[in-house]
Amino acid sequence: MQAPEHAQYLHFGATSQDIADTALMLRVRQLLGLQDTALRALLRDLARLAHDHAETAMVARTYGQSATLSSFGAMVAVWGNMLADLVDALPALRDGVLWVSLSGAAGTGSVLGPDPDRVRADLAAAVGLRDPKRSWHADRGPILRLAAWQTQVTAALGKMAQDILIMTQSGLKTVSLDAQGGSSTMPQKENPVQPSAIVALANMAAGLNATLTQAAQHREARDGAAWFTEWMSLPQLCLTAGSALILSGTMIAGLAPNAAALSAQIQNTDDMILAEAITFALAHKMPRPDAADRVKAMVKEALAQDTRLLEIVKSQHPDLDLAQFEPAKQLGSAPHFARDFAARVSSLT
Amino acid sequence: MQAPEHAQYLHFGATSQDIADTALMLRVRQLLGLQDTALRALLRDLARLAHDHAETAMVARTYGQSATLSSFGAMVAVWGNMLADLVDALPALRDGVLWVSLSGAAGTGSVLGPDPDRVRADLAAAVGLRDPKRSWHADRGPILRLAAWQTQVTAALGKMAQDILIMTQSGLKTVSLDAQGGSSTMPQKENPVQPSAIVALANMAAGLNATLTQAAQHREARDGAAWFTEWMSLPQLCLTAGSALILSGTMIAGLAPNAAALSAQIQNTDDMILAEAITFALAHKMPRPDAADRVKAMVKEALAQDTRLLEIVKSQHPDLDLAQFEPAKQLGSAPHFARDFAARVSSLT
Amino acid sequence: MQAPEHAQYLHFGATSQDIADTALMLRVRQLLGLQDTALRALLRDLARLAHDHAETAMVARTYGQSATLSSFGAMVAVWGNMLADLVDALPALRDGVLWVSLSGAAGTGSVLGPDPDRVRADLAAAVGLRDPKRSWHADRGPILRLAAWQTQVTAALGKMAQDILIMTQSGLKTVSLDAQGGSSTMPQKENPVQPSAIVALANMAAGLNATLTQAAQHREARDGAAWFTEWMSLPQLCLTAGSALILSGTMIAGLAPNAAALSAQIQNTDDMILAEAITFALAHKMPRPDAADRVKAMVKEALAQDTRLLEIVKSQHPDLDLAQFEPAKQLGSAPHFARDFAARVSSLT
Amino acid sequence: MQAPEHAQYLHFGATSQDIADTALMLRVRQLLGLQDTALRALLRDLARLAHDHAETAMVARTYGQSATLSSFGAMVAVWGNMLADLVDALPALRDGVLWVSLSGAAGTGSVLGPDPDRVRADLAAAVGLRDPKRSWHADRGPILRLAAWQTQVTAALGKMAQDILIMTQSGLKTVSLDAQGGSSTMPQKENPVQPSAIVALANMAAGLNATLTQAAQHREARDGAAWFTEWMSLPQLCLTAGSALILSGTMIAGLAPNAAALSAQIQNTDDMILAEAITFALAHKMPRPDAADRVKAMVKEALAQDTRLLEIVKSQHPDLDLAQFEPAKQLGSAPHFARDFAARVSSLT
Repeated sequence: MQAPEHAQYLHFGATSQDIADTALMLRVRQLLGLQDTALRALLRDLARLAHDHAETAMVARTYGQSATLSSFGAMVAVWGNMLADLVDALPALRDGVLWVSLSGAAGTGSVLGPDPDRVRADLAAAVGLRDPKRSWHADRGPILRLAAWQTQVTAALGKMAQDILIMTQSGLKTVSLDAQGGSSTMPQKENPVQPSAIVALANMAAGLNATLTQAAQHREARDGAAWFTEWMSLPQLCLTAGSALILSGTMIAGLAPNAAALSAQIQNTDDMILAEAITFALAHKMPRPDAADRVKAMVKEALAQDTRLLEIVKSQHPDLDLAQFEPAKQLGSAPHFARDFAARVSSLT
Repeated sequence: MQAPEHAQYLHFGATSQDIADTALMLRVRQLLGLQDTALRALLRDLARLAHDHAETAMVARTYGQSATLSSFGAMVAVWGNMLADLVDALPALRDGVLWVSLSGAAGTGSVLGPDPDRVRADLAAAVGLRDPKRSWHADRGPILRLAAWQTQVTAALGKMAQDILIMTQSGLKTVSLDAQGGSSTMPQKENPVQPSAIVALANMAAGLNATLTQAAQHREARDGAAWFTEWMSLPQLCLTAGSALILSGTMIAGLAPNAAALSAQIQNTDDMILAEAITFALAHKMPRPDAADRVKAMVKEALAQDTRLLEIVKSQHPDLDLAQFEPAKQLGSAPHFARDFAARVSSLT
Repeated sequence: MQAPEHAQYLHFGATSQDIADTALMLRVRQLLGLQDTALRALLRDLARLAHDHAETAMVARTYGQSATLSSFGAMVAVWGNMLADLVDALPALRDGVLWVSLSGAAGTGSVLGPDPDRVRADLAAAVGLRDPKRSWHADRGPILRLAAWQTQVTAALGKMAQDILIMTQSGLKTVSLDAQGGSSTMPQKENPVQPSAIVALANMAAGLNATLTQAAQHREARDGAAWFTEWMSLPQLCLTAGSALILSGTMIAGLAPNAAALSAQIQNTDDMILAEAITFALAHKMPRPDAADRVKAMVKEALAQDTRLLEIVKSQHPDLDLAQFEPAKQLGSAPHFARDFAARVSSLT
Repeated sequence: MQAPEHAQYLHFGATSQDIADTALMLRVRQLLGLQDTALRALLRDLARLAHDHAETAMVARTYGQSATLSSFGAMVAVWGNMLADLVDALPALRDGVLWVSLSGAAGTGSVLGPDPDRVRADLAAAVGLRDPKRSWHADRGPILRLAAWQTQVTAALGKMAQDILIMTQSGLKTVSLDAQGGSSTMPQKENPVQPSAIVALANMAAGLNATLTQAAQHREARDGAAWFTEWMSLPQLCLTAGSALILSGTMIAGLAPNAAALSAQIQNTDDMILAEAITFALAHKMPRPDAADRVKAMVKEALAQDTRLLEIVKSQHPDLDLAQFEPAKQLGSAPHFARDFAARVSSLT
């Protein structure tokens, strides 16, 4: 600015939205780099957990109810695959988002000299953004794509945090966290503050994304009301996602399954968790509907007598090989899903 | 179902979510096909408009204010490019969404026989969906990606409809629509019902997508509350997008620019719309800041004398070639943006 | 309509929004009546539960962690008081919502004869709605107030349903529900479908209310886009709230606390749940900070020795009267909060 | 804190949520006071505008189309009445929101001494908040009510700002604003930055309120995830509303109708805006359906001949007194609605 002969070319033929949108994308480029790195680090920790616990049996729960057996690693793989899909989406996201903006007052580049396309392309090359070869003042597609990705990252972390909140509950305690919040008044209490905060961030992201989507109904060539809405919601959404990622990294680094609690949880089902498996084992000897009826009756009986289901099975179907119902043999594809995920992370370039 | 020896294998080893999610994706496949077709038809109509009016000068407005000149075709190209980007996104979307689900009660496929991966892959091949090679009961990534695309389509149509609502206003009338709603009590009135409805659908989509995003915090192996939330919001979101597409197709087929009104709108700016162009023309003869000051002064004078800006320019800068300020010469890249878009649509396979 | 001399006065001087908004309010009046009745019936069932279990000790949980003792009735009172506040809000809501609309094409009543105020007031009296003494075509305050109430009802029911979802979890089972959904494949499983559906409805309501709020930015004298948005979201929001109310009524009628499980849950805390109470008991003999330190140390010791906290207390503070730590004596205001709520419901006119 | 014998009673028997929620309400009390004052100041300015322009004829527009005549004051009254209703709601809001919280770890006040109700009531009296006579840790009704009011205020201001954005458009300019944003590159341009920002704030508020509503599904006795969501959204929502109020105050203080433009807008309708009035005038001489048909035909003829509608009326219905169609005589209840609103503001205590 000390060189007035050059200073006059600052903001020359551009509109303030060109400057702001281009600057935004330069910052988003850095943000995506940081998020990429954080996601990969988190994925490596998740892959380690998934690999180490590929065969750690646990009760899989649906509707909050003990359903069938799965493995801790398989659960981690669900969290991880959602996030790995989002890492896979990054190259296309960068292509569709990191655009230069330079098209002047109303998007026509009319005072950018004889070859405005060339000026825009040169600027794109100079700052390392993509040249969309058009004006996008009023086309908020790049913003929507960026917001969708940030929201999806936060939602995926929110799903993971919800699961952890459930597992840290008193009465379950199937995982432990390094960092717990102390209670101000109850000395015995350890509050799962990290997953609580991640869920809160995921709640925020869903609302901010809705506001941004509304603002994509950008009126005419440039729309102050819509654009100001972005100013308030997009940076906040990005920080929300970034914050959730950082918290998740710390949380997962300090997360460990509680082997004793996982095992006790299986025991506490009184073998009811094997009901489906027993049905299918019996179905080798009779039509499945009949097998299902038999098992339903045995479940009823076990509940009435307050005894373990396998006891009833042993007495009523002595020919059935009970060894097949050991937890380790009831994990189905869980171990292999866990290892597949770990391998997927290894192969992330 | 008349063959009980086969009927027992219906729903064998699957959970109801496998059936429902797979059925959903079969319907989504059809939906995306219909939307793809509708989008391409709409794009062809937009391309025709953009091509035919690549050089039809119009006042580009920012913050609702006359800014600089552009062309009708360039405005249409903004609408169209947003939509064409969404057509381009369809192959990746289909890959990331149209997945088979077959992983049993808690996602481990434990009673799907000795090779559950094979069963799932075979089912995928049989129904023509992609095999994700894992369970996605609790990974709602595919749903989020689908919802984001539907929401982005509706938002893009909403932007177009907002522009049309502005242009159909009394006092502007720069476009006409084939189908107008009559007033129940005012015989002279024609209500722009189509764009109003499209904006309403875009409003709905933003809210439904937020609800769906919230539901992606799917708890444990399967979550009734989250899943039921999807049931209420996802079909509605898809219908919202589909409805907006159909309405947009009809609306654009009946849309025509009003040449006289576009031209009058330019005239009514009293050449003020040329202020930026005049500044840059003067900047060839003096530093740009000085040129800007001169033009500001002339604008003030023109307003005070209630005369056209070019009259003032002619008297104060007689050496300036006024021919360069004819609308047709002030369109900048607008015609070429319009034609680029038309060419882009032609090359859509 | 067979009397043409009268038929001409149908829709005379009114606009379609007058007809539609007045008709809406006639239906909303019925809706609020039904919801009022359903809320009162639900409150009576909650009051009975609160009264009957005012002293049924249970573990109160914060952050999912056992915190201190409370009573089942006190928890029910929290649910009920939220709803009773909403019943209390009904008279003001009716006043601020159930308005007649009759102000013609653009809200001035210009062709409603010499005394349009009188016509509007007479119509209001005839159909039993309130006369707002003005036009509210573009003032969507009544809609926002109605929507806020519907959303608050659904959110309150959602809070109750979330609590019930937690209590029906495997490993807790502190409540039982009459109606459970069977699993398609796991005979032992009972899915808490009712509270899952209520949470889903509460999720929907939050999103629909956001869409409606957006539509309250009603442009000019009447705004098609905003009004159509209401058409899609308001009836759905009302049905969502109504549906959640009906489901909640059935759910609560079939809900019972599981005394054995509630008691076992207290036992399973190894007296840790008394830590705060012990601190305050000790604080009678030493400064509270010292008491807190002592209890922290004893909690640590109990965990290390895997023994009950009161065992440690007995050995280290033999002078402390342990009888004061019986659950029944640790309920604080819980029983009285439960009974206050029951009394509040009794006194609802 | 220099008095350890008293310091130990700080946070005695309370949980951190008691402290935080009570502190929140102390700040909300101040906030509502400031907002009350700001709303009344804004209402006074609106009342002045409504009173001064009770008879200033303007074109009322529906669907963006010239509909019938109204007055500038009547439009202002619509804005103002929405806001006055919200001022009227303040006493009940304060009652239902400004609550003390003091119920300890899990809401039972169990370590607040022999009479926890008395302690809570005394604290309420000491800090000047209402005693709800119960715990509301998990009953977020007060938060929802506060958020609904903040959102409704912002939505009402958003409606006003949308109208002003339309009226400041090039081609209309029926109002002028004191403070306009200059364009960085177009010297003739004045951007309506204030109403744009207010609309953006109203967009934000709708999203933040949805997030808060979601968080009202507060789990169990205290829910970290839900509470943290409030921390992020409630203060922001309140600031959003406060900011919109301040901006609106400045905007309305600087707003003036443009008499010449309002009058030209009426002229430019070519009397079409009188079509409904003519229909009803003719309906004194023939059945209304016949009158409607006649006017439709005359409208068509006027459009075809590009002449004013009253010219056609004069030639075809020479007996009709045209003086009744002067704008000043066609305002219906508009002037009286405007004055009623001004009187309402005067009588606000």
